[in-house]
Amino acid sequence: MTYQAPVEDILFALKSAADVPQLMESGIYDGLDEDTLRAIVEEAGKFGADVLDPLNRLGDTVGSSLADGRVTTPEGWQSAYAQFCESGWNALTGPEDHGGQDLPEIVSCAVTEIWNAANLSFALCPLLTMGAIEALKAHGSKQLIETYLAKMVSGEWTGTMNLTEPHAGSDVGALRTKAVPQGDGTYKLSGTKTFISYGDHDLADNIVHMVLGRLTDAPEGTRGISLFLVPQVLVNEDGTLGARNDVVTANVEHKLGIHGSPTCTLIYGENDGAVGYLVGEENRGLNVMFIMMNAARLGVGLQGVAMADRATQHALQYANERTQGRGPKAKRGEMSPIIEHADIRRTIMTMKSMTQAARMICLVTARELDLAERGATKEERLQGEMRSALLTPVAKAFSTDIGVEVASMGVQVHGGMGFMEETGAAQYYRDARILPIYEGTNGIQAIDLVTRKLTLDDGAVVAGYIDELAETVDALKSSNQPLFGKMAERLDEGLVALRSASVWMGEQLQSNPEAALAGATPYLRLFGLAAGGIYLAKGALLAVRENGGADRDHVALARFFAETQVPAAHGLALSITEGADSLLSMPIERLSA
Amino acid sequence: MTYQAPVEDILFALKSAADVPQLMESGIYDGLDEDTLRAIVEEAGKFGADVLDPLNRLGDTVGSSLADGRVTTPEGWQSAYAQFCESGWNALTGPEDHGGQDLPEIVSCAVTEIWNAANLSFALCPLLTMGAIEALKAHGSKQLIETYLAKMVSGEWTGTMNLTEPHAGSDVGALRTKAVPQGDGTYKLSGTKTFISYGDHDLADNIVHMVLGRLTDAPEGTRGISLFLVPQVLVNEDGTLGARNDVVTANVEHKLGIHGSPTCTLIYGENDGAVGYLVGEENRGLNVMFIMMNAARLGVGLQGVAMADRATQHALQYANERTQGRGPKAKRGEMSPIIEHADIRRTIMTMKSMTQAARMICLVTARELDLAERGATKEERLQGEMRSALLTPVAKAFSTDIGVEVASMGVQVHGGMGFMEETGAAQYYRDARILPIYEGTNGIQAIDLVTRKLTLDDGAVVAGYIDELAETVDALKSSNQPLFGKMAERLDEGLVALRSASVWMGEQLQSNPEAALAGATPYLRLFGLAAGGIYLAKGALLAVRENGGADRDHVALARFFAETQVPAAHGLALSITEGADSLLSMPIERLSA
Repeated sequence: MTYQAPVEDILFALKSAADVPQLMESGIYDGLDEDTLRAIVEEAGKFGADVLDPLNRLGDTVGSSLADGRVTTPEGWQSAYAQFCESGWNALTGPEDHGGQDLPEIVSCAVTEIWNAANLSFALCPLLTMGAIEALKAHGSKQLIETYLAKMVSGEWTGTMNLTEPHAGSDVGALRTKAVPQGDGTYKLSGTKTFISYGDHDLADNIVHMVLGRLTDAPEGTRGISLFLVPQVLVNEDGTLGARNDVVTANVEHKLGIHGSPTCTLIYGENDGAVGYLVGEENRGLNVMFIMMNAARLGVGLQGVAMADRATQHALQYANERTQGRGPKAKRGEMSPIIEHADIRRTIMTMKSMTQAARMICLVTARELDLAERGATKEERLQGEMRSALLTPVAKAFSTDIGVEVASMGVQVHGGMGFMEETGAAQYYRDARILPIYEGTNGIQAIDLVTRKLTLDDGAVVAGYIDELAETVDALKSSNQPLFGKMAERLDEGLVALRSASVWMGEQLQSNPEAALAGATPYLRLFGLAAGGIYLAKGALLAVRENGGADRDHVALARFFAETQVPAAHGLALSITEGADSLLSMPIERLSA
Repeated sequence: MTYQAPVEDILFALKSAADVPQLMESGIYDGLDEDTLRAIVEEAGKFGADVLDPLNRLGDTVGSSLADGRVTTPEGWQSAYAQFCESGWNALTGPEDHGGQDLPEIVSCAVTEIWNAANLSFALCPLLTMGAIEALKAHGSKQLIETYLAKMVSGEWTGTMNLTEPHAGSDVGALRTKAVPQGDGTYKLSGTKTFISYGDHDLADNIVHMVLGRLTDAPEGTRGISLFLVPQVLVNEDGTLGARNDVVTANVEHKLGIHGSPTCTLIYGENDGAVGYLVGEENRGLNVMFIMMNAARLGVGLQGVAMADRATQHALQYANERTQGRGPKAKRGEMSPIIEHADIRRTIMTMKSMTQAARMICLVTARELDLAERGATKEERLQGEMRSALLTPVAKAFSTDIGVEVASMGVQVHGGMGFMEETGAAQYYRDARILPIYEGTNGIQAIDLVTRKLTLDDGAVVAGYIDELAETVDALKSSNQPLFGKMAERLDEGLVALRSASVWMGEQLQSNPEAALAGATPYLRLFGLAAGGIYLAKGALLAVRENGGADRDHVALARFFAETQVPAAHGLALSITEGADSLLSMPIERLSA
């Protein structure tokens, strides 16, 4: 089946959950109005469907491969990438003075979902370039910016993130890649980096690696890490390409999914050292890397939304076409499309509501990033910064967990056909599985949320956020809308659970941090369910306000999520606050016995 | 890593949850005592580790393939199968007068888990043979039994189940395979069967297909289905093999997982018709098929347990070896094994407790099957029959959902390495995904539970079962054991939720069956959580009774499950009873828009 971008769902999420019309009125989005926004999303939808989607299957079956030291992408990918860049889709948020369009995050995120739903493996490449651009823009020297930025914004050159080494994954501080200053402002790097997405490929003329390394005399751990820009091909002073840098592609991984995306092992400095340029200050590389990672984390969250949406579309089409058994509306002697069976219907509704909830969380995070950058007052910008910091791990982990779960439901809706590779549902199930892992595993996200984000401004950031969510519950209650069923009650309970779990977390961080860490993963889930439920409810309120609830889809979706998914909050809260005791009472040696 | 059969976990589940010592005392297991049981499980563990496990990876990477109309299994599989049969492992429950050992289901199920954990693709073959044996034994004519049974019990010939046709999957009643009586007691069959596991292979000399078909004048739907035994190779009167029957292997599917298991499309009767023999009565084939399916459904549940256990072992080993970051016990300058991080520890504990809970449900179901067959009184046998009927869909669906979830957690524990095929975690994630689909999708299991099982004896069967589960809660409460934490409270709440949801289901089946069907899947989950939690608690009680809780593993595992997983019951009950309204309020056309 052909991908159809969920234009209306995306625009509705921006309008209802992310309050984009109010932001437009406030003037922070200068030229952007609703029509322009719609036009961009619709155009992206067309490009995704016409150009990227048709290459998705080939990316899976053929994949990218390594031969004679160079990586080849599947047939048609070069041309698609060229079209992508020519159409101006690369790095929409790129600075105008370097050829970008300086569009806000909400626009970039909306289309990021579309690229990834159409072709996850392909879309990872521009996503990484975007992260590298952000780091370069914020911390690159004037000369580095002049040399590299415009080419990356245009997509002529792509960007990568080089963190992982065989012994240093989640624990970035353990990395060993060496950087030796050459006295001329450059450094020579040597070391091995693994799991480098698009570390090598044939889509662009040059690849700009952002590489974490360690100066010879650097302190141990995370305080001794610096960030270097290491181009695959050296750039001459006049901007033309020169000699190949000392970077070798040693391996392309054989993976469970995203076969089109080449995951490379790169060896730096096997000969005389790879030439690199410092980005930001010495030993402060992690700070710069976090800029890239935060942008990428939201991007990965959107990949989760994308996979969930794609799997839902795919399953929905099958459920409408495949006939089996007799539903309540079946005519005599006829089989019903399986969508008419209540269990399948429930599965599809679950998929749809989870997808939209995750989408809303991601787009609200994007909105907060825009406020951080463009807010009118310092306070507004600071609040945007804090809020986006708080929400980023939730957007990443909740959405990618949802991506995997919904892709698995998509397989299930297909029955036996779902297990056959030709159907395509299995590819989403395989592809989606990387999302909870890369850019910081979801466990790391949960720990980040609990240890670094809940403590922001002594807990005032999360408390203020929950207060704001509670306003929607109040609005639901005072609406007295019978269409809303038990929505207000269930969301209220969800928020109460989130609030008490947040308080408990704050206490444990002081007295028993192990217990807080033990509950981090279910806490993040609780956070996502409560926030997602509230955002869907904002949609229901808007729908009722605009047309008295005639447009019942938004109401039914919000109510369904509140009444079937959010009730998990109660159990999650217990699991968080009571689970640590028994967990920590089982000695690790016994657990492993 | 090498597979290590969880001998102690299996024996403990049999002893605590399934009360096997009491059953042994009651005499229904004649010669079987605890030592013999242990010896069998240990021997099976060795065979699984030494013979089946080493072929698992090859089964995945090379797979079974079709060439020149014949299927070839991976290298080494023929020899392993020969050893499996020679060692007497095939069809342990087979009748003694046909070369079997007439061992009880509890033994067969214990070793079934082991074969499947060692090599899921391989073990599916004897699992299907066992189902075919059951049907033949119960409903075959004397002549069919004499000709086929001993060969199938020994494993010289294997068995298959042929239900699915392209347009008839879950809806078996829609099948079209034709059977024309030849007047000599035989039938000629023609039709296409798809998704036939081990429909062709090179492990045995003959394949005995159990094929559902329709007589020329049969009524429509499920009441016009008959079951036929159709050998791949015809058998002469003296028992030697004759000519090849008119069955062609048209295709072997390219699947997400279980690549070693050939999933075939079989075409019957392309030439002059495939010779078949009626099993049971004309038009009553579905009843016979249900015998096979019920046996197979419990077997598939055990496959879920097997995948969960295997993935847990694999992840646990990695978590002990892989060092990253610093846990609370880390020495200065050293990284910790990731098992020491609370979030990983929680994941592993979740995997372990879910696996053991599912295992216990399956083994209790096996015990009920034994009572149905061997119970001393008619009442006992009837109760065993009813209980096993009630529990079979839970054993199948809950355990296979757990299988997929735990396999996914296993990938996650491995971080980036989990996504690399060479690690092996990805194979479990792929292989496990078939389990919620085949032998009746888990949605079908949930519908079976709600519509056919809750109504058994007007609801008295489920009510009596819940009453029995409640006895364990009472025992927990009166034990006043501080080690138990909130276990009694949480399990009590779980049971209350299960009871009220069961009552609600009974009411809806009368007044609003669509609502009951809409809640079937979360209801089954609730059932599994409550039952699994109680069985783990029985283990904790036993451990305390036997050694005052010195053996804290069972206590910690039960408590962890009760305090972190069972609390989901509250939300599931709400989701069941309140979810139908909003679901059914969204018109199907709009859902699909």
